[in-house]
Amino acid sequence: MNRMGDSTSSGPLRIAVAGASGYAGGEILRLLLGHPAYRRGDLEIGSLTAAASAGTTLGEHHPHLIPLADRVLGPTSVDDLAGHDVVFLGLPHGHSAEIAKALPDSTVIVDCGADFRLVDAADWERYYGSPHAGNWPYGLPELPGGRERLVGATRIAVPGCYPTAVSLAMAPAVAAGIVEPRVNIVAVTGTSGAGRALKPNLLGSEVMGSASAYGVGGVHRHTPEIRQNLSAAAGTDVTVSFTPVLAPMSRGILATCSAQTTVSAADARAVYEKAYADEPFVHLLPEGRFPQTGAVIGSNAVVLGLTVDPDARQLVVVAAIDNLTKGTAGGAIQSMNLALGLPETDGLSTVGVAP
Amino acid sequence: MNRMGDSTSSGPLRIAVAGASGYAGGEILRLLLGHPAYRRGDLEIGSLTAAASAGTTLGEHHPHLIPLADRVLGPTSVDDLAGHDVVFLGLPHGHSAEIAKALPDSTVIVDCGADFRLVDAADWERYYGSPHAGNWPYGLPELPGGRERLVGATRIAVPGCYPTAVSLAMAPAVAAGIVEPRVNIVAVTGTSGAGRALKPNLLGSEVMGSASAYGVGGVHRHTPEIRQNLSAAAGTDVTVSFTPVLAPMSRGILATCSAQTTVSAADARAVYEKAYADEPFVHLLPEGRFPQTGAVIGSNAVVLGLTVDPDARQLVVVAAIDNLTKGTAGGAIQSMNLALGLPETDGLSTVGVAP
Amino acid sequence: MNRMGDSTSSGPLRIAVAGASGYAGGEILRLLLGHPAYRRGDLEIGSLTAAASAGTTLGEHHPHLIPLADRVLGPTSVDDLAGHDVVFLGLPHGHSAEIAKALPDSTVIVDCGADFRLVDAADWERYYGSPHAGNWPYGLPELPGGRERLVGATRIAVPGCYPTAVSLAMAPAVAAGIVEPRVNIVAVTGTSGAGRALKPNLLGSEVMGSASAYGVGGVHRHTPEIRQNLSAAAGTDVTVSFTPVLAPMSRGILATCSAQTTVSAADARAVYEKAYADEPFVHLLPEGRFPQTGAVIGSNAVVLGLTVDPDARQLVVVAAIDNLTKGTAGGAIQSMNLALGLPETDGLSTVGVAP
Amino acid sequence: MNRMGDSTSSGPLRIAVAGASGYAGGEILRLLLGHPAYRRGDLEIGSLTAAASAGTTLGEHHPHLIPLADRVLGPTSVDDLAGHDVVFLGLPHGHSAEIAKALPDSTVIVDCGADFRLVDAADWERYYGSPHAGNWPYGLPELPGGRERLVGATRIAVPGCYPTAVSLAMAPAVAAGIVEPRVNIVAVTGTSGAGRALKPNLLGSEVMGSASAYGVGGVHRHTPEIRQNLSAAAGTDVTVSFTPVLAPMSRGILATCSAQTTVSAADARAVYEKAYADEPFVHLLPEGRFPQTGAVIGSNAVVLGLTVDPDARQLVVVAAIDNLTKGTAGGAIQSMNLALGLPETDGLSTVGVAP
Repeated sequence: MNRMGDSTSSGPLRIAVAGASGYAGGEILRLLLGHPAYRRGDLEIGSLTAAASAGTTLGEHHPHLIPLADRVLGPTSVDDLAGHDVVFLGLPHGHSAEIAKALPDSTVIVDCGADFRLVDAADWERYYGSPHAGNWPYGLPELPGGRERLVGATRIAVPGCYPTAVSLAMAPAVAAGIVEPRVNIVAVTGTSGAGRALKPNLLGSEVMGSASAYGVGGVHRHTPEIRQNLSAAAGTDVTVSFTPVLAPMSRGILATCSAQTTVSAADARAVYEKAYADEPFVHLLPEGRFPQTGAVIGSNAVVLGLTVDPDARQLVVVAAIDNLTKGTAGGAIQSMNLALGLPETDGLSTVGVAP
Repeated sequence: MNRMGDSTSSGPLRIAVAGASGYAGGEILRLLLGHPAYRRGDLEIGSLTAAASAGTTLGEHHPHLIPLADRVLGPTSVDDLAGHDVVFLGLPHGHSAEIAKALPDSTVIVDCGADFRLVDAADWERYYGSPHAGNWPYGLPELPGGRERLVGATRIAVPGCYPTAVSLAMAPAVAAGIVEPRVNIVAVTGTSGAGRALKPNLLGSEVMGSASAYGVGGVHRHTPEIRQNLSAAAGTDVTVSFTPVLAPMSRGILATCSAQTTVSAADARAVYEKAYADEPFVHLLPEGRFPQTGAVIGSNAVVLGLTVDPDARQLVVVAAIDNLTKGTAGGAIQSMNLALGLPETDGLSTVGVAP
Repeated sequence: MNRMGDSTSSGPLRIAVAGASGYAGGEILRLLLGHPAYRRGDLEIGSLTAAASAGTTLGEHHPHLIPLADRVLGPTSVDDLAGHDVVFLGLPHGHSAEIAKALPDSTVIVDCGADFRLVDAADWERYYGSPHAGNWPYGLPELPGGRERLVGATRIAVPGCYPTAVSLAMAPAVAAGIVEPRVNIVAVTGTSGAGRALKPNLLGSEVMGSASAYGVGGVHRHTPEIRQNLSAAAGTDVTVSFTPVLAPMSRGILATCSAQTTVSAADARAVYEKAYADEPFVHLLPEGRFPQTGAVIGSNAVVLGLTVDPDARQLVVVAAIDNLTKGTAGGAIQSMNLALGLPETDGLSTVGVAP
Repeated sequence: MNRMGDSTSSGPLRIAVAGASGYAGGEILRLLLGHPAYRRGDLEIGSLTAAASAGTTLGEHHPHLIPLADRVLGPTSVDDLAGHDVVFLGLPHGHSAEIAKALPDSTVIVDCGADFRLVDAADWERYYGSPHAGNWPYGLPELPGGRERLVGATRIAVPGCYPTAVSLAMAPAVAAGIVEPRVNIVAVTGTSGAGRALKPNLLGSEVMGSASAYGVGGVHRHTPEIRQNLSAAAGTDVTVSFTPVLAPMSRGILATCSAQTTVSAADARAVYEKAYADEPFVHLLPEGRFPQTGAVIGSNAVVLGLTVDPDARQLVVVAAIDNLTKGTAGGAIQSMNLALGLPETDGLSTVGVAP
C-alpha cells in the first residue's frame, strides 16, 4: 500500500491509538506530533482509546503531550477504532487478534504487543500459555530481509524492546558466521519497559538506588523472540542465554552480548560496518568507545560498540536503544512509514535528549 | 595477633585511616563508629589523613559522619600514621608499599587499594603498567582457605569490589566442578565504585538516567583478580569474560555470572548451600528469587540467587553486594576483626537500609 | 513506666509491629535489629502483622531484613498483637483507636499513623473527614516540653515526617519571638513518604527524572500539625504556608522554611545554638553551610542550616531528615526508649549511609 | 533584521556555537538539528568551538548528537566565529563583551551567559564582582513588552534558567497588583543547571538520592535578575526571597512561588489566563493540578499551576520548565527566531519526552 502516493486519496491519513494511556501509546503520540505528515496536515490523530481510563483526558496520563491534553479517551472498541487508515495497538497481549479480525484488511494495524511476533506456535504456547494467534510481518527493517517484508504491509508485529537491541547487536555476527551459535546476553533496562502496571517492585521507592535481576534462566518472554531472530539470521539454531536487569532509570536498554569467536576485533568490525553501512538508525562507535543509554533517549538510534576479548576469545557487542522509541513506538512509526510508502525516517531522529 | 586477648595491652586499639576524605575511607569510618569495640571504648579513631584535602575538616567531605565532623585531616605521611595498632589505606594504587615498609611489622595494615592483591607479577604489570609490589593475605574469608589466611595477619589486601561479588558467586561452582571453566560476567555497578575522582562521565548529569558499558573486552583491572580467585578455587585455569556496566545509582553491584553446566538447578543449589552453610554474610535466596542491590545498601551481606537455564544448559548466579561495604570497607573491617581476634561479624550487619 | 528498671520483670521485652510489610514497619524492624537491647537479648521481636500480605514472609517485602526473612506475617488483629510489652502501629489512619482500646493500658502503643496527633477536633475533621479519635503524647522530644511528656507514656503519637522537620526547623525562632508568626515552607521529599501504595504517580518511571508539587495551597494533611506545633512553641497563632514537593529519591526531606525577621544571622544562630545545645540528634551546621538529605539516610539526625537574607529581611532555615528514620521509625524508637526508661539514643545514630 | 525575508541573501544562514562542548551548547545544537530551517537547508551549522576541548570531536562530549559526531571543535576565537549570521555563546560569564565587540554589528549574537542580563551596574558588581558590561535586549518574549524588544535584535541576553521560570510564574500577579510585592521562591533544579563543571558536589554519587539547598539567603546570582524582572513587571520594587534546591535529576526546574494576596483563586486564575492567552509556550493547568518537570523534558513549554491558600491568604504558583530548553537553549532559539523574522515557534515544541 502506498497511501501517500495514492492520487485518489481524499484527505489526510487518520490514525487511531488503542492503549493511549500507556507508555507505548504515549510515545507513539509523541512521535506522531512531530511527524512531518502531521505538521503539514497530511496526518490526523483520530481516536485515542483506553480500558479503565476511558472517559478521562489524555492530559491526566501524559502531561507531556500538551497539544493533546484535552482529548478524551474512548473505550477500546472496534467501533472507536474503525474508520482509520492506521491503527496502533498498545495493548496487553491477547487482545490484538480479535480487533484485527474486525477491522478491514486495508487498515494498517501496527501491534506493539507480542501476539504476532513468534513464528513457532510451540514457543508461543510455552511462554505465554495461550493459543498462538499467528504471525505478522516483523517490524525490524534492519534485519536481513526485514525492510522488504514491511513495504506495503497492512499487519505489522512490532518487535519486543530487548529483541530489537539484541538482534541488531548480534545478527551481523551470526549471519557472517564469525561467532559460535551460542550467545550470552545481559541487558539492563529502565522501568518503562514494564509499562504502567501497578506492581510493588516498580514503585519509585523500590527501583531508585537499586539494580535487580529478574526473569533469570531463560524464562523471560523475549527469549524465544531473540532466538528466532538470531537463528533466522544465522540460518541455523542459535542458543541464547538471556538475563534482563532492571536499573534505576525510566528509559533505555543497554544490552551486553557476547559469543565465542576466532576473528580479530578489526575483522568483526568490518562485518558490522558492511552490515549497517546504509542503515539510517544504526550508529557504530569507533574502536574503544561503547554506548550509553543516555545518548539515545527519545531517539530512534541503535548505538553499537564492539570489541574482541583476546583472552576469552569472545566478541562483545554492546547496544543501546531507547526501549520506548526504537524499542517500541519508534520502530512502530518506522514500520508504518515503510508500509505507507512514506520516507522511512520521517518523524524519527538519531538525536537524543541529553543530558 | 590477638590484640583484644592480650592482657598486657595498655589501652584501646588506635586506628588510623589514610585517604579519609574518599569513599572507602568514609565507609570505614562509618563502620568503625558503629563497631562494638568503639562503643565500649576499646577502639579509638586516631589519625585521619588525606592528600589535597589535608587541613580541611572531615565534615566538609563526609557530612554524614556527624560525630567526627570537626576532625581535621592531616597529610598522609608516615609520621601521621605511626603509633597506631591498625592503619587502613584508602589510597590510589602505588602508594601502599612505601607506607607499609615504614610502619612496624606489628602494625595491622589493611590496604583497600590494589597493590597487593595479585599474585602474578606479569598480571600486575600488564594491567597496571608498573612493577609488582608483591602480595598480601587476601581479605575474602569466604573463599576456600580464606579465613585461615587472615587470622593474625598484619598485612591484608582487601579485594576489589567486583572480584568480591563475582568470586563468591562462582567459586562454589568452579570448585565443585559443576561448570565448565569459562565464566561470563556482566556486572552492574553504582558510581561510588569509581571513587570521588572528578571525571566528566561521573557527573550526576551524565549518569542519571543512563547506563553505560566501560572496560569492555577484558581490559578492566579487576579481570585478572577474578581469574586468580576462580582459578584458585577451581584448581585449574578459568577463562573469564568480564564486562562492567555503570548504572545510575550511588552504591551496589549486581553481578550476573554464567557458565555451561550439565547439572540441575537443584544440584547446583545443593553445592551452594553446602559451601555457604556457615557463612554469616552470605545469603542464598530461595529458588525463583533473585537479588537486588537495594537490599544490601550499607550492609555486609552477599545475596545470591541461582538457577539453571535448561535450554542454554547454563548455570546463572546473580550476586548483590554493596560495593563500599562488603566490596571494600566492610570486607576490610571483617578482615581486621579476624586479624585482631575480634568476633568476625562485629560492627557489620546483614541488614541493609531500604527502601 | 520504667520497664527496664523493673526488677520484677520476668524476661525480655516483647515487641509487635502491625503493618510490618510497609515502609514504616520495615524501618522499625531495621532499627530494632540494631538496638542494643535486642543484641543483648533483652528485647524480642514478636508478632509481625499485615493486612493483604498476611501469610507471606517478611523477606518477600523487605529483602533487606535478612535476619527476619523467614518470619511469616500474621493478620493485624488484637489476638496477634496481645501479649506484647510494646506495639508499634504502622497502619493507615482510622485503625489505631480500636486496637488501642482492646489492648491493656500498660501496653506501650506507638502509633506511626495520624490518628492521635492533632489536638483540635475541628482540624482533624476538616483534614481527614472522620470523627476525631483524641490525642496522645506527641513523640517529638526536642520540642519545648516534648521529652517530659514521653517519659513513662503508654500511648504515643509519632509525628508526621514533614512536621518533624519543619517544627524542629522553626520552633526555636517562633518560641524566641525573633520572627513574625508567618512561616513559609517548601519541603522536598522522597517517595517513601507516600508509603507503599500502588499509585501511578509513585511508579519509578514517573518519579525518576521529575520533581512535582502536590497538596499545594494548604491542603496537605500535615499542615494543621505543623501549625499546631509552631503555635504551641510560639504561644500564639502561627500562620503556615506549606507546599510539599516530590523529588526523585527514595528517602529524605529537605525543608526550606522562612519568616520575616529583624535580627541578624548571628543572633538567630545564637537562639538555635541555645535551643539545641543538649539535643543528641540535632546538628546545626556552621554559617555558610546547608544540609543535604544524602547525609542523613538511615540516621536519626536532624541537620539544620540557617541564615538571614539581608535584602528580604527573612530568616531562612533549611532542615534535612530521613523521613523514614527521624521522620517516622527513628522518632518512634526514640519515644519508646523514653517511655520505657531506656537510654534515649539506644538503637539510633547520627551517622548516615553515604554516598 | 529579517534575514529570511531578505531577497538578496545568497545562501543559507550560517550559525556558530561557542562553548559547544557544554550543556547549553549541546542543547542549542540538538534544537538546531530539528529546526525546520535546518531540515530544508536554509540554515547551516558552522563553527563549533570550545576552550580546553578544542581539537576533540563533538561526539566525545555529546554522544546524543549523532549527526554531528565527527565534527571537530575549534578554539573559541573571533576568527572561528566570524563569518556567521548567528553566533550563540555558551561561555562562562566575562567572555562575551570582547567577542561581541570584535564581531560585526549585523551578526546576531545570542549570549546564554549572564554578562548582559542585568540593567543595574551595582547589582552586577555586587553579585559578580567585576565591571558591568552593559545590557542587551532580554530574551524572554512572554514578559510584558518582551517580544517587541527582540524583533530584529542583533544582540540578545538569554535569561537565566531560574529567572525564566520564576518571572513567568509571578509576573502576571505582580503586574496585575493582586499580590503584595514580596515574593517567596523555592526552586528545585536538576544538576545540568550547574553546567559540566567538575565539582565534587555535582558527582553522581553525591547527587543521587539526595536533595540539598545552596545559595541560601539571597546570595544566588539569579536573585537580582528575578528582582529586576518582577519589579519591571510590577512597576515598583519587588522584594524577593529565593532559595535554590538541587535535586537528583539531570534536567528541570520546579519553582514554587508565593505572595500574600486578597483575591480568590478564581480571580487569580483569570489574571493568568488573560496574560498568557496567546502565548504558544505557556500552559496553565486546570484548578487542582500542578506541574511536574518530567512533562517538559526537552520541550520549550512553561507549565503553570496555581491556587490560593485560604488560611495563609497566599497565592501559590508552581512553574515547571526544562532548564536547558526553555531555561537556556530553547529560549535562545525562540529569541533567534524573533530576531531573524522566522516563525517564533520553529524548532521548538511543547511536547516533552516522558516518562
